[in-house]
Amino acid sequence: MLVEKQLVRLKSYDMALSPESQLITNERNKTTFNVTELTNILDGGVEKTALRKSIERKFSLDPNMKAIHRGYLNKEQINVQNNRKMMYFFTNLAKRNNWHVDKPHSPEMEFLPRTLANGSGLVIHAGAFVPSIESFGTPEQAAKWLPLAKACQIIGAYAQTELGHGTNLRRLETTATFDPHTQEFIMNTPSISSMKWWPGALGAMATHALVMAQLITRGENHGMQAFMVPVRDMTNHKPLPGITVGSIGPTLSLDSTDNGYLRMDNVRIPKENMLAKYAYVDSKGKFQKIGNDRLMYASMVNLRVVLTKDEAVTYIQMACTIAARYSCVRKQGSLTPGGPEVPIIDYVTQQDKIIPYIALSYALHFNLAFIRSKYVKFLEDVKRGDLSNMAEMHMMTAGMKANATERTSAGVEILRRSCGGHGYAISSGLPYILLRLVASCTYEGENTVLYLQAARYLIKTAAKVSMGQPVDASVMYLTEDAPDRCQAANQMELYDHSILEACFKHRSKQLLLSVATELQSLVADGMKQMEAWNLVSIQLVNAAKAHMEQHIVSTFSAYLRNLNCSNEVREVLDQLCSLNALHQINNFSGDFLKDGYLSSKQLDMARRAEVQLLASLRRNVIGLVDAFDFTDDMLGSCIGSYDGNAYERLYEWAKNSPFNKSDVHEEIYKDLRPHLRQGRDILNKMSKL
Amino acid sequence: MLVEKQLVRLKSYDMALSPESQLITNERNKTTFNVTELTNILDGGVEKTALRKSIERKFSLDPNMKAIHRGYLNKEQINVQNNRKMMYFFTNLAKRNNWHVDKPHSPEMEFLPRTLANGSGLVIHAGAFVPSIESFGTPEQAAKWLPLAKACQIIGAYAQTELGHGTNLRRLETTATFDPHTQEFIMNTPSISSMKWWPGALGAMATHALVMAQLITRGENHGMQAFMVPVRDMTNHKPLPGITVGSIGPTLSLDSTDNGYLRMDNVRIPKENMLAKYAYVDSKGKFQKIGNDRLMYASMVNLRVVLTKDEAVTYIQMACTIAARYSCVRKQGSLTPGGPEVPIIDYVTQQDKIIPYIALSYALHFNLAFIRSKYVKFLEDVKRGDLSNMAEMHMMTAGMKANATERTSAGVEILRRSCGGHGYAISSGLPYILLRLVASCTYEGENTVLYLQAARYLIKTAAKVSMGQPVDASVMYLTEDAPDRCQAANQMELYDHSILEACFKHRSKQLLLSVATELQSLVADGMKQMEAWNLVSIQLVNAAKAHMEQHIVSTFSAYLRNLNCSNEVREVLDQLCSLNALHQINNFSGDFLKDGYLSSKQLDMARRAEVQLLASLRRNVIGLVDAFDFTDDMLGSCIGSYDGNAYERLYEWAKNSPFNKSDVHEEIYKDLRPHLRQGRDILNKMSKL
Repeated sequence: MLVEKQLVRLKSYDMALSPESQLITNERNKTTFNVTELTNILDGGVEKTALRKSIERKFSLDPNMKAIHRGYLNKEQINVQNNRKMMYFFTNLAKRNNWHVDKPHSPEMEFLPRTLANGSGLVIHAGAFVPSIESFGTPEQAAKWLPLAKACQIIGAYAQTELGHGTNLRRLETTATFDPHTQEFIMNTPSISSMKWWPGALGAMATHALVMAQLITRGENHGMQAFMVPVRDMTNHKPLPGITVGSIGPTLSLDSTDNGYLRMDNVRIPKENMLAKYAYVDSKGKFQKIGNDRLMYASMVNLRVVLTKDEAVTYIQMACTIAARYSCVRKQGSLTPGGPEVPIIDYVTQQDKIIPYIALSYALHFNLAFIRSKYVKFLEDVKRGDLSNMAEMHMMTAGMKANATERTSAGVEILRRSCGGHGYAISSGLPYILLRLVASCTYEGENTVLYLQAARYLIKTAAKVSMGQPVDASVMYLTEDAPDRCQAANQMELYDHSILEACFKHRSKQLLLSVATELQSLVADGMKQMEAWNLVSIQLVNAAKAHMEQHIVSTFSAYLRNLNCSNEVREVLDQLCSLNALHQINNFSGDFLKDGYLSSKQLDMARRAEVQLLASLRRNVIGLVDAFDFTDDMLGSCIGSYDGNAYERLYEWAKNSPFNKSDVHEEIYKDLRPHLRQGRDILNKMSKL
Repeated sequence: MLVEKQLVRLKSYDMALSPESQLITNERNKTTFNVTELTNILDGGVEKTALRKSIERKFSLDPNMKAIHRGYLNKEQINVQNNRKMMYFFTNLAKRNNWHVDKPHSPEMEFLPRTLANGSGLVIHAGAFVPSIESFGTPEQAAKWLPLAKACQIIGAYAQTELGHGTNLRRLETTATFDPHTQEFIMNTPSISSMKWWPGALGAMATHALVMAQLITRGENHGMQAFMVPVRDMTNHKPLPGITVGSIGPTLSLDSTDNGYLRMDNVRIPKENMLAKYAYVDSKGKFQKIGNDRLMYASMVNLRVVLTKDEAVTYIQMACTIAARYSCVRKQGSLTPGGPEVPIIDYVTQQDKIIPYIALSYALHFNLAFIRSKYVKFLEDVKRGDLSNMAEMHMMTAGMKANATERTSAGVEILRRSCGGHGYAISSGLPYILLRLVASCTYEGENTVLYLQAARYLIKTAAKVSMGQPVDASVMYLTEDAPDRCQAANQMELYDHSILEACFKHRSKQLLLSVATELQSLVADGMKQMEAWNLVSIQLVNAAKAHMEQHIVSTFSAYLRNLNCSNEVREVLDQLCSLNALHQINNFSGDFLKDGYLSSKQLDMARRAEVQLLASLRRNVIGLVDAFDFTDDMLGSCIGSYDGNAYERLYEWAKNSPFNKSDVHEEIYKDLRPHLRQGRDILNKMSKL
C-alpha cells in the first residue's frame, strides 16, 4: 500500500519534463550539423538508411523479438529464451521477409546483425556451420545438407577447436580413419585434450557436427579434412552411440551460444560424409587433393571483416551513445567557485574518455567500409583464379580484426567506467556490451597471433623493399621517400590530415625497419630464425599495430577527400579524423619521439591540439552519437536512452525487477529472522528503560 | 549408459599422471629459490604464515564455508546462498574462533579477507555500517548500537550515495529537518535523483540505514550529518511507514552485496538518532559543532588501504597464479622447424603478458605494506591530536588506490586473455576475478577524481618547492637536484634500482613541474583558476600517476635494501623490482624521451633489458606464484590448480554441471523438435532413394 502511494507520487512527477530530459534537449539543440545526413553517410546512402529502418521496424513491432531481460535469469533460462527467439527468427520472421540470412553479402545482412545483437547457438549454426558446408562440400553434398541446415531441420556445429588445441590446427588430435571394408570413416577423440571443445550450438542443440579431423587412410595422415558427423538422434535428440556430448558451461557473457564438447569413440560415418570439395578418398582409400584449397581461406577472411563490423564497431558505437548521453545529463561539481553543478561532459577528463572513442567509432567504420570493398574486388579476382592478393588481404583483415577488437574493448571499458557506478549496473546496458565485445579479442584468431601473422607479411614486405621489388598497394608507403622530421610548424598544422598521415606512415616504417634490421642481425649472428623471431616478437606486434593504425588514419582521410557532403558534416568528420590520430600520437608518444620525428615542442602542440579538438567537438557529442541511430530497445540502457531520462528509467527498472516483487524477500529474511528477533527484544527492553 | 561407459574410461585415465601434471612438476623443479621463504616474507614472518594457514584451514574444513558454484545460479540464488554463508560466518565461525572481524587492525583481519573473497551485504554491514557508528556516534550511541550490529541483531546499510549524486557530497539532496515540537528529525528524499542508491545490504536485508543527510534546523542548512533510520520492521521485516526500499538490481559481478535504494517520505526519527560525535542539536534546534571532524577522515583513509590490499592485490595475485600455471601446461606451436610443441610460456609475447604482472603483484604488495605502516604511525599522531600528516596521507592513499586498481584491472584482463578461450570460461575462475576487481576502479572514490585530488596536493607541493618551503617526506625528491640525463651506460646498469628510481623521480618531477608551469601561465594570462585546472586536467592526472609509480618503484627498492633473506630470494625479488620499473618505462617511453632524459639508445637498451629479464624469470614463474600460497578452493579455477590438471578439471567441471544433468535438454529440444522431425523425414526419404 505504501509502495503504491509512492508510485502515484512518482507518476505525477513523471509527467513533467524531467531536468535530465531538458538537459539532453538543450544539448541536442547545439548540434551544428544535420544528423540525418550523417546517418545516411554511415549507412551508405538514403536508400540504405530506409532499408535499415524498415528492418528495424519489423523487429520492434514483433513481440517475439523482444529483448530478454537477462539480469535476473540464470544461464539455462537465458539460453532457452534466446534460442526460442532465434528459432522464431530463422524459421519465421527472416523467412517471411525473405531476408537472406545465409548470404553475408545480401543487402539486409549489412543491417540485420546490428538489430539482432544476439548470441545464440542458432546464430553460430547459421554463421559457421552453413557456410562451412558451402566451403568444404561438393555441389552434391551442398545440395543434400544446405536446404536442411538453412531450414533448421538439422542443427549443426562447426567442430574444430579441441580442449587442448586451438590456434595450431596441424596438431589437432581428432582422427578420421578410413575403413575400406565398410567404406566408412571411424571417428575418434583419443585423449581428453583431443575432445572437441567450444563449438557453438553443440552443447544442447546440434544434431550434426562438421568435425575437423586428421584424415588417416592406408596408415598415412593426410592432414585436416571436414566430416559430417551425426551426433544426436533425429527422433529423440539423444546422443548417438559412441558420442559423448554436452555443454562446456557458462562464459563471461555468451550464455546462449550453447558452446559444447564432443567425444567420439569409434563412431562410424559413411564415406560420403567427408566433405570433398578439395580432397577425395577413393573406395580403396587412395587420397587425392582436388583444386586449390587456398580458396577456402577466401571466405574465412570475410568472417573477420563481418565480425569486426558486427561486434567491435557496433558495440563501441552503442557504448559511445550511452556514455555520451549520460555524461550530458549527469551533473557533478562546478567549474566556478560556488557555481551551479555542471554536466560531467564539461570536464576535460570526461571528454577525453568519450570523444576519442566516438572518433574511433567513425574511423573504424570507414576503415571497414574500405576493407569490405577491397574484399569484394578480391573475391572477383579469386573467382577468376587470381589469388595474388591473398597475402595482403589476409594481413589486412588479420591486423584489422586484432587492432579494432583490442582498441574497442579498451574503449568500451573506459566508456563504462566514465559512467561511474551506474556503468557497473546491468541496467546501464554497458556490462553486456563489454563482456560480449571482449570475447572478440580471442575468437576467430587470438589477437597476438593475428598481429604476428600480419607482421610476417610486413617483414617479407620489408625484405622486398630493401631489394627494390614491387609491393602491394596498402604497403606502398614503405617504399616512399619522406622527410624524417614532422613538418608541422604550429598547432593548426597538426589538424592537417596529410601531416597526421605522414606521422603514422613514418612511425610504422620506423618500427618495421628497426625490427627487421634487428631480426636480420640476430640471424646473421648465428641465431636460428624462429628463435630470433620469438626474441623480437614484442616489437613485431608493435610494428603490426603501427601499420594498422596508419591504415586506419589513411583510409579515414582518403574517405573524406572523396566524400560529397555539407560543410557542416565535413567539419565534424574532419575533426574526428584528426582527433583519432592525435589521440594515438599522445598515447604512444614514445614511438614518434624516439628517432626525433616529432620534437618535444611538437608533442606539446599535439597535446594542446587534442584538448582543443575535444572542446570543439563537445557541443556535437549528442549529434554524433544520435547519428548512429540506435533505438532505445537496441541499447537496452536506462542511462543512455534518447530522452535522457536516466534516473527515472533506473528507478522504473529497479522497481519492476523480480527481486522486488514483494515487500519482504522471504528466502533472505529466513536466515536473518532469529537474530533480528533477539535484536528486537533488546531494543524493546532498552526503550522501556 | 553411454555416458557412464565414457566416465569409466576417463576414470582410469585419471589415475595416471596426466601430461599436464608432469609439465607443471617439471616447471616447479626448476625453481631457484625456497618458495616457503618467500611466502613467509609476503606474510610478514613465519608466525604470520602459521596464523594465515590456521585460518585458511578452518575455512576449508567447514562445510558451511564451501565456495558457491555461481555459473548456473541467478542473482537471487547467489544472493541467498552467499548471505546464508556469511550469516553463518559472522554469527558462528568468526565468533567461535574469536576473530575480531570488526577491527581492521586485528591480526586475523590481515588474512581473513583473502579467504573470504566474498561480496555480501553482510560484509558491507560489517565493513561500512559498523565502523561508521564508531566514527560518527557518541560513546553512548556506540554503546547502544554497536553490540546489536556486531551480533547481526540489526543489519545496517551506510546510505550516502544518491541516484543523482556521488562524488560531490555537498550536493546530496536528502534532508533531515529538526522539529522542536516533537524533538524529532523529519527525513525526506524530495526528488528521484535524491533517493539513496547503491548502499550495500539495503536491498533486502537492512533493518537500519545510517543516512547521510543535510541537517536543517531553524531554517538553516548545516551540511551533512549521519542519522540512524529504522527502515524495516524488526518483527516482520516489512518496510516501515514512509519508507520505500528495494534492490537496485544486478551488477557486473557483486551479485550478493544487496545494493539497494531508499526513499523517505516524512519519516520521523527521534532526536537521539542523529549521530552526534562531531555535531549536536539542542532541544531548541540550535546547532553546534564539536571537536575536529577531520578525525573522521583518518578512518576513511584506512578503508582505501584495506580495500586495495584485499581487492586489487589479492586479485591480481590470484590471476597471475592461474595464468602462469596454465601457460606452463598449455602447449601450442613449436620454436624449431617441425619440432615438438612447447608450453606457451616459452613465447616472449606470453611472458610479456604474465611476468610483468607477477612483478606488479610483488611491487604493490610491498608498497601497501609501506603505506600501512605509515598509516599506523599516522593514527598514533592523530590520537595525540597531530593532524599534520593528513594531507600527505590522503594523497598517498588516494593515488595508491587509483593507481593500484587501474593497473591491476588492466593486468587481470591481460592475464585473462593470455589464457585464450579458456580465460573466457567461468570455469577458469578469471571472469569473476576480473569483474569483481574492476568495480574497485569506481567505488571508494572514482579513480580520475582520486588522481585529481592527489594532483592538488602535488601542485601545492610544487608551489612550496618553488618558494623553498619544506615539503613532506614522500615528495622530498621534488626538491633534490639530480642529473638531467639518465646515467645508465649499458644494459646491465638499467637493472640497477637506483638508476631506475632516478628515472621515475625525474619523470614525475618533469611532468609535475611542466603542468604546474602551464597552470600558472594560464592563470597569469587571465584564465580563472578552476577553468585552467580543467584545461590541464589530463596532464594533472598523468602527473599524479607518475608520482605514484615513482612511489611504488622507490618503496619496493627501499624494502629490498632492508630485507634480510637468502641470496636466491634476493635475486628474484631484485629482478622483479627491475622488471616492474622497466615495463613501465617501455610502456610510457614518451615521458622519458620527451626532455631527453633517456636517449633513443638507452630506450633500446631498456627494451632489451626487459626481454632479458623475462627470460631470466621464466624458470621461476611457478615458484613465484606458488609463493602466494592460494589453495585450489580459493582460486576456483579449473586451469590454475596446483597440480596443473587443466584439461581433466575442465571436463569434470563441465560434465557435472546442472546443464548436463540429462542427455536431452528438454526445454531447448521442445523448440527444435517440430523442425527436426521434418529434417528426419527428409533424410529418411533421401536414404531410401
